[in-house]
Amino acid sequence: MPEIRELIREGKGKRVYATDDPDYAVVYYKDEAMAFHGLKRGRILGKGEINNAICEHLFTLLEDQGVETHFVRQLDARQSLVYRCDMMVFAVKIRNRVAGSMHTRTGLPVGMKLEQPVIEFCLKDSEMDTDALVNHTHLLAMKAATMEEINEIRVLCKRINEILSAYMSEINIELIDFRIEFGRFKGKILLADELSPDKARFWDSRTHEPLDIDRFRRDLGGVTEAYQEVLHRMMGTTY
Amino acid sequence: MPEIRELIREGKGKRVYATDDPDYAVVYYKDEAMAFHGLKRGRILGKGEINNAICEHLFTLLEDQGVETHFVRQLDARQSLVYRCDMMVFAVKIRNRVAGSMHTRTGLPVGMKLEQPVIEFCLKDSEMDTDALVNHTHLLAMKAATMEEINEIRVLCKRINEILSAYMSEINIELIDFRIEFGRFKGKILLADELSPDKARFWDSRTHEPLDIDRFRRDLGGVTEAYQEVLHRMMGTTY
Repeated sequence: MPEIRELIREGKGKRVYATDDPDYAVVYYKDEAMAFHGLKRGRILGKGEINNAICEHLFTLLEDQGVETHFVRQLDARQSLVYRCDMMVFAVKIRNRVAGSMHTRTGLPVGMKLEQPVIEFCLKDSEMDTDALVNHTHLLAMKAATMEEINEIRVLCKRINEILSAYMSEINIELIDFRIEFGRFKGKILLADELSPDKARFWDSRTHEPLDIDRFRRDLGGVTEAYQEVLHRMMGTTY
Repeated sequence: MPEIRELIREGKGKRVYATDDPDYAVVYYKDEAMAFHGLKRGRILGKGEINNAICEHLFTLLEDQGVETHFVRQLDARQSLVYRCDMMVFAVKIRNRVAGSMHTRTGLPVGMKLEQPVIEFCLKDSEMDTDALVNHTHLLAMKAATMEEINEIRVLCKRINEILSAYMSEINIELIDFRIEFGRFKGKILLADELSPDKARFWDSRTHEPLDIDRFRRDLGGVTEAYQEVLHRMMGTTY
């Protein structure tokens, strides 16, 4: 077991630590929540433990279907061991229905089903916005990735979306959209960061009620309960 | 000669009128100028006549090299006859060096030469911004164009950029970036809207002084003179 060393980055919902082995890092999932570029802050009790469990579940599911991820194993209730990737400077949002900024940007109605998924490349921590939309020509200009890497990431995103959407629908959750990150590790591109209700829109398939961070953003209440419900459904305890 | 009828749209620097022939429209170039989403307004004396002449010159140049455009002929000093297109809801920006919003968005330094042109699709008149960036998956979701049309437009943009950049460099102007629009007409995609210093960044190749609307935006003075200089160089009166 690698020993935990210095903090290498801190996000809205987690901290990533180096270890004494340069190939590994440790992710610590926090209860803290943030929205609207940090203007709204709070705590979602138990979120760290729930997200750690959801991430283990979804990364393992993807690995089982041939998608390579940074996930190695859970260390304890709030921490997981991951491969230490050279992270891409951009995130990718994949959308199956219109919501959030896609509604604002395009004027399309919230909830509209997309015939083909919308894939958005967004710069992390840009000066203009915390998630500024870019396209592949910007990424090439920034030398953020090669065209081969961008094409590989596009294929990976479609595959990850298919696997997750199919799985979630079995537990009566519709995957509306989600935000993921990739990193380079030993010549490969791995799915990294997290897969959790902090970075996705999960709607109950029957009621269309959000079971994700939108409950916090929009003061809908029952945030912990919604996260817990997602995990319960994944664990098969209510299905 | 078709007779002018009702105003069909008005932009920052021109008005477009219907005619009694549904295949034709008339563009009237104004002296009015606008920047920062309409927060800054003014007049650039003689701009309408200069832009009408520059458009005739550049559209004709492109037509001579096989690019189909909406331009038919000049009618008088401020007006030109064009084919009346079904305009695309998006504009395209083509960039050869970093400037303006690309600097803000990516953090890349102003003036940085791009190895490959950056091509941006932007929604005209979106609620979020007067020119909100989108990608091809948004355009497909909005049914703004088919994938075939988007691919054709990408090829056209590269070709138009090559032709204009090569021509401008002969008159010692570097084409930094420009914004164009396309329209459908009788089953074809035509380059429409305008090609002028109102919608482009033209830098003097030797001094890197702007010869375009940035002089108005940034209160650099000599706006009419800069527009006039561009036209003079095109007309071969100073070269």
